[in-house]
Amino acid sequence: MTDSALLDRPLDATALIADMGARARDAARILAATPTGRKSAALLAAARHLRATVATILAANGEDVAAGEANGLSGAMLDRLRLDDKRLEGIATALEAVAALPDPVGRVIDESERPNGMKLSRVRVPLGVVGIIYESRPNVTADAGALGLMAGNAVILRGGSEAIRTSRAIHAALVAGLAEAGLPEDAIQLVPTTDRAAVGAMLKAAGLIDIIIPRGGKSLVARVQDEARVPVLAHLDGINHLYIDAAADPAKAEALAVNAKMRRTGICGATETLLIDRAFPAPGRLVAALLDAGCEVRGDVAAQALDTRALPATAGDWDTEYLDAICSVAIVDGVVGATAHIARHGSHHTDAIVTEDATTAERFLAEVDSAIVMWNASTQFADGGEFGLGAEIGISTGRLHARGPVALEGLTTYKWLVRGTGQVRP
Amino acid sequence: MTDSALLDRPLDATALIADMGARARDAARILAATPTGRKSAALLAAARHLRATVATILAANGEDVAAGEANGLSGAMLDRLRLDDKRLEGIATALEAVAALPDPVGRVIDESERPNGMKLSRVRVPLGVVGIIYESRPNVTADAGALGLMAGNAVILRGGSEAIRTSRAIHAALVAGLAEAGLPEDAIQLVPTTDRAAVGAMLKAAGLIDIIIPRGGKSLVARVQDEARVPVLAHLDGINHLYIDAAADPAKAEALAVNAKMRRTGICGATETLLIDRAFPAPGRLVAALLDAGCEVRGDVAAQALDTRALPATAGDWDTEYLDAICSVAIVDGVVGATAHIARHGSHHTDAIVTEDATTAERFLAEVDSAIVMWNASTQFADGGEFGLGAEIGISTGRLHARGPVALEGLTTYKWLVRGTGQVRP
Repeated sequence: MTDSALLDRPLDATALIADMGARARDAARILAATPTGRKSAALLAAARHLRATVATILAANGEDVAAGEANGLSGAMLDRLRLDDKRLEGIATALEAVAALPDPVGRVIDESERPNGMKLSRVRVPLGVVGIIYESRPNVTADAGALGLMAGNAVILRGGSEAIRTSRAIHAALVAGLAEAGLPEDAIQLVPTTDRAAVGAMLKAAGLIDIIIPRGGKSLVARVQDEARVPVLAHLDGINHLYIDAAADPAKAEALAVNAKMRRTGICGATETLLIDRAFPAPGRLVAALLDAGCEVRGDVAAQALDTRALPATAGDWDTEYLDAICSVAIVDGVVGATAHIARHGSHHTDAIVTEDATTAERFLAEVDSAIVMWNASTQFADGGEFGLGAEIGISTGRLHARGPVALEGLTTYKWLVRGTGQVRP
Repeated sequence: MTDSALLDRPLDATALIADMGARARDAARILAATPTGRKSAALLAAARHLRATVATILAANGEDVAAGEANGLSGAMLDRLRLDDKRLEGIATALEAVAALPDPVGRVIDESERPNGMKLSRVRVPLGVVGIIYESRPNVTADAGALGLMAGNAVILRGGSEAIRTSRAIHAALVAGLAEAGLPEDAIQLVPTTDRAAVGAMLKAAGLIDIIIPRGGKSLVARVQDEARVPVLAHLDGINHLYIDAAADPAKAEALAVNAKMRRTGICGATETLLIDRAFPAPGRLVAALLDAGCEVRGDVAAQALDTRALPATAGDWDTEYLDAICSVAIVDGVVGATAHIARHGSHHTDAIVTEDATTAERFLAEVDSAIVMWNASTQFADGGEFGLGAEIGISTGRLHARGPVALEGLTTYKWLVRGTGQVRP
């Protein structure tokens, strides 16, 4: 079947996903009992196949980029889409890194023995069939497929139409790796159509797909959360706050504010709002440092007064994830004012306090209801790799199952094992 | 406001739940920081108030029972609804038992230190606002309210209309306990109307309610799963299997089969299907033991031939949760046949093997994909109390967040705490 046949042919999306789901379930049964070494071997082989097919992948990517240019994709989207030797080597290296991660499957969470002699244990097992819905970043095809597989799951990937040729070429390397390791090729499937109806069918595939993980912008995540009848690992906005307490070290505060906001402005761990304690002695230098670093500052009345270059914030600013070199700045009354602002405007992603006062810091850590709460560290560290988890499949802002960076463990569940000697219940 | 005013007045269900949800969120913020002792004190006080208001509660219950009789409720439903001194004492004792459980909030799940000196920890925190939707068992009002509170959550209870007067009287005792301990009365709220629109509003209250736990029959659970835009802790059928391996001890097998099926036939941990290895030497005695215990046996051709009293099974029997003194019996080819039957017909709740062969047992434990998998123990042990967890809010047959018996830990989530000394991300 040629690419264009796959792209164009009409199909019954529900039947397609039902078929893919059934094959994924069969593969998942095998993967659940597959030893670590064989999963690693498949990923190492996939990295080899990826390197061996660089020319093919780059040619496919070139077609995607040309189509994207013809369709008027933005420069930022084209940049995310475009691969080169270096980026492809990064994808291969990432596959090898996942292959080296400790396998969560089989890990004993806890054990106990009942008075009647029954032995109980909770043991980690794969989630089952994981659906990943993403946009134009071709590396997600490799990353998400690898993480899902390493946790013992079958994966159904549905990538954005802009990257479909690239995704297919990368997927072929993954499948070659699976085959080389003697694992079922259905362990990592790529939805063969760009028809958006396939997304809808995945979202409704309860019983076929155990969890959907959306990776992409707000409109994708919103559609997924709105339509899904399958559990979703939510990944919402990062409206993150950095609070500078009266007892903050001014030099640390300045370095942390500039890093948290400006190191990379487009990642979900970037700070969006700076909160400054009214009693902090050097607020002007803080705001000036951001402005000097090229950041637009939008302040409340008190913050705007700190620097003539600062603009006034509007009410909407406090609820905005800029993902850009823009920072809203508010002056608050101590840790109580900061936590109240965060409770009202935060998105439960990552929030941080800068202070040398341990009591104030612990109060902030306890009271802020976010997936990640930091003391004297940059919010830009909100990342599975930085947390030592290896690669991450996303950062969950939901409260169930997994919260914060989701890596291999978040792609597993557990079961209870009971070993008895014939006990009957009285 | 009189009872009848509450029962009858028309209302805007969405506005009602929005108001209850906002008040619950405020209460949840306080509860998240409430020490164990005060939560326990509230429950101990609630038990006292329950005992002090026995007459009021029994009078309310009498009205519910009379209304139920007038409305033609079945005998089984009336029995579940009816309270007496002994049952109420059981409810009070259960409150005291929850008050004595170890508090999961604040427990450190894991800790690590990064090469840059940042200290990471994952700490258990309450889920937030928990919605419980249940039917006519009045004890759920106390049990679910207590468990939710002890895990630091605000709870919104929506009980069945048949028990509304009883639930209100029990709820009053809980609220008196909260007040006595200085905790917000909104920590445990009871939806004041029996209008079914309130259930729909709860199911759609994303952002207001963090998790919905349905406790009831299939139609309730199906409605919840169909309509919910809030995450649901699913509690589906228990189509549980007991597999008697060739290497089973015949006496143990007989005792386990009778206990697993017949001890209490109406609980979700009851065995529904007996699978007998074709090579098991004493299958006839097994079937006879069930029949002698008053169980109807519906066998496949081979099983039916074991006893003249056995009836033929139809195709639907293998997918049926009888919750009654009926057992389907199939003859299978060893552990492979048993696990294949379970994969096809099971509900991922609880399945067990009886064998003296440890290798076969471990294979069964590894391959059966159910929340609870047992070796030489009765499936009737599938219960949070029997597992040493204290009371349970339900048994989850879903794969995310919590699986199997859900007790206090399942009513919590975690957050990541990062303690640094000014680290910025390179």
